[in-house]
Amino acid sequence: MKWQNELTQKFKIEYPIIQAPMLGVTTPEMVAAISNEGGLGSLPVGGLSPAITHDLIKRTRNLTNKTFAVNLFANSLPEKDHPQTFLEMQNLLAEFAEENKINYKKVSIESIPFHSYKDQIDIILEERIPVVSFTFGIPDDKTIEKLKAHDVILIGTATCLQEARILDSKGIDIITAQGIEAGGHRGTFIESENLPLVGSMALIPQVADAIKKPVVAAGGILDGRGIKAALILGAQGVQLGSAFIASDESAATPAYKFRLQNADDTATVLTRTVSGRWARGFENKLMQAVEQSKLEISPYPFQIALTSSFREYGQKQDDENFMVMWAGQFSRKAMKKSTSEIFKRLIEQTEAI
Amino acid sequence: MKWQNELTQKFKIEYPIIQAPMLGVTTPEMVAAISNEGGLGSLPVGGLSPAITHDLIKRTRNLTNKTFAVNLFANSLPEKDHPQTFLEMQNLLAEFAEENKINYKKVSIESIPFHSYKDQIDIILEERIPVVSFTFGIPDDKTIEKLKAHDVILIGTATCLQEARILDSKGIDIITAQGIEAGGHRGTFIESENLPLVGSMALIPQVADAIKKPVVAAGGILDGRGIKAALILGAQGVQLGSAFIASDESAATPAYKFRLQNADDTATVLTRTVSGRWARGFENKLMQAVEQSKLEISPYPFQIALTSSFREYGQKQDDENFMVMWAGQFSRKAMKKSTSEIFKRLIEQTEAI
Repeated sequence: MKWQNELTQKFKIEYPIIQAPMLGVTTPEMVAAISNEGGLGSLPVGGLSPAITHDLIKRTRNLTNKTFAVNLFANSLPEKDHPQTFLEMQNLLAEFAEENKINYKKVSIESIPFHSYKDQIDIILEERIPVVSFTFGIPDDKTIEKLKAHDVILIGTATCLQEARILDSKGIDIITAQGIEAGGHRGTFIESENLPLVGSMALIPQVADAIKKPVVAAGGILDGRGIKAALILGAQGVQLGSAFIASDESAATPAYKFRLQNADDTATVLTRTVSGRWARGFENKLMQAVEQSKLEISPYPFQIALTSSFREYGQKQDDENFMVMWAGQFSRKAMKKSTSEIFKRLIEQTEAI
Repeated sequence: MKWQNELTQKFKIEYPIIQAPMLGVTTPEMVAAISNEGGLGSLPVGGLSPAITHDLIKRTRNLTNKTFAVNLFANSLPEKDHPQTFLEMQNLLAEFAEENKINYKKVSIESIPFHSYKDQIDIILEERIPVVSFTFGIPDDKTIEKLKAHDVILIGTATCLQEARILDSKGIDIITAQGIEAGGHRGTFIESENLPLVGSMALIPQVADAIKKPVVAAGGILDGRGIKAALILGAQGVQLGSAFIASDESAATPAYKFRLQNADDTATVLTRTVSGRWARGFENKLMQAVEQSKLEISPYPFQIALTSSFREYGQKQDDENFMVMWAGQFSRKAMKKSTSEIFKRLIEQTEAI
């Protein structure tokens, strides 16, 4: 089959297959392996400090001289969280930590760090990153202008037609259409009473029809069947996350990988309990404790700061009750191989159809 | 392309394309047109009386000598609705009707007719219907046995892997995998705290991998791209509903067709307000009134009996505020042509890919 299209030409890559930026799971080694195989690796740096951003980019650069993307969170700092909401949630979580013999570090609302994507732009330009993808909104006009002036290709995330049209009108070059099947955080940025919950089968062709720019399909794609189907539905490229979580280069722990490979289609939930933003993953005790409390959930990044003690503990102890395990609706039998073997297998599967 | 497969051979049809049974929209003319074109028409008779069932089958039979399916609701009569819940909902709706100058017929809870699928089986056998599809559960073992003894092919509806496995274990011949994109009623029949909300892109390959029987994909398919994509994902056939709602043979009113053709991907909601069962359609005043009342919704078929005055009024007056307008997440630009022209166009579109 013919893989080359407008998207591969823009990115100067061989296959229009993008590894989803998965903060906490993606490593520089994973990104480099994808790019070295001819796909597009994505390095997630959303919400990280400029120093860590710089370090991660340099580590990735040392492992590949191919194109890779850097992924940003384009949200603005929310108004200060309601101090009462914050304190109530913190008290609940401190109590829950004590019950489970986990060391919980209380923090003051003022001390929570917020790193804006604006502080990461100069590093990206300095390091001559050719592709920047973003989620949780749209960078401000000045930032878009600055990136475009340096020929950086911009990829935005849309979870419905309305968002795709907004990104298009802002001059974003490529639209990732994130179906409801996708694992991890929803990219939704419109203010709406109801979270858009559009399945990939409906979302991809409608966005492709509405936008005269390359569309990347994300959500529910785990193997060659999904890749081929998404291309037929009108996407020029695909973005896969769950497919790489069980890879050797992934930072996911053994318990997380086990749950992923044995998951049924209904094993994940959409929840705001972990970060304050909607995200899809496997349910655990931490989520249930927050859910059952019926307390108001703090907005991002306050809620994610409040749950960080658990996530660190869970990751270190390989305890699925407290770690974060984002995953999509199709992760069953995700391959446990090296990232490059998985990538090669995806190409073979797609070509065999 | 090669259309023939196990499914087309079982059904003795030319194309593995099934018209979704849409009660209130599907007419005998629509069913016959699909079957005459080489697809599988489906006549919805769920919840109808044996006399009406018989009449509809005869009317369809007069229009085609090809195979068509009859679709049943396989639910059992719920325990009597809580009389207080029923009365409160009826009072709300009577008041809402008065505000809108609609004639509301109050009924007693005992007078609500419930027609079991069991009373339709003899007619189906008498009329030598070769294919029976069902939703909302599984017919009882005796009914399955009786239908199978007469070589009737059985199609069940699953909204998640667990349901597909249950249908498979009951000896059902073909599984329709209904993705979250699908319009109309959810086929969900497992008792679960959370309604399964699996997108087609994730559901189709997982069901196809788990079940060694032909799988039919339903949900989000409007054109040739969706048909081809679903077949690649592992389905042997596809079921389309929204694609036929704007057809000449459809019972949908002009206002409903207009809304369908101009719908965005997020234009539909999942709601229990109309029938007591979860279904996807365009929101209107009737749904909002029930939703905003916060009253407990009566189970099917009580709630649907309670809202019938509005539905009849809306249908007669072509008033979208009160009629039922089920639709999937992809209905935009659904074709307004004869059913057979739409069907031919779908074949052409698929073959052109």
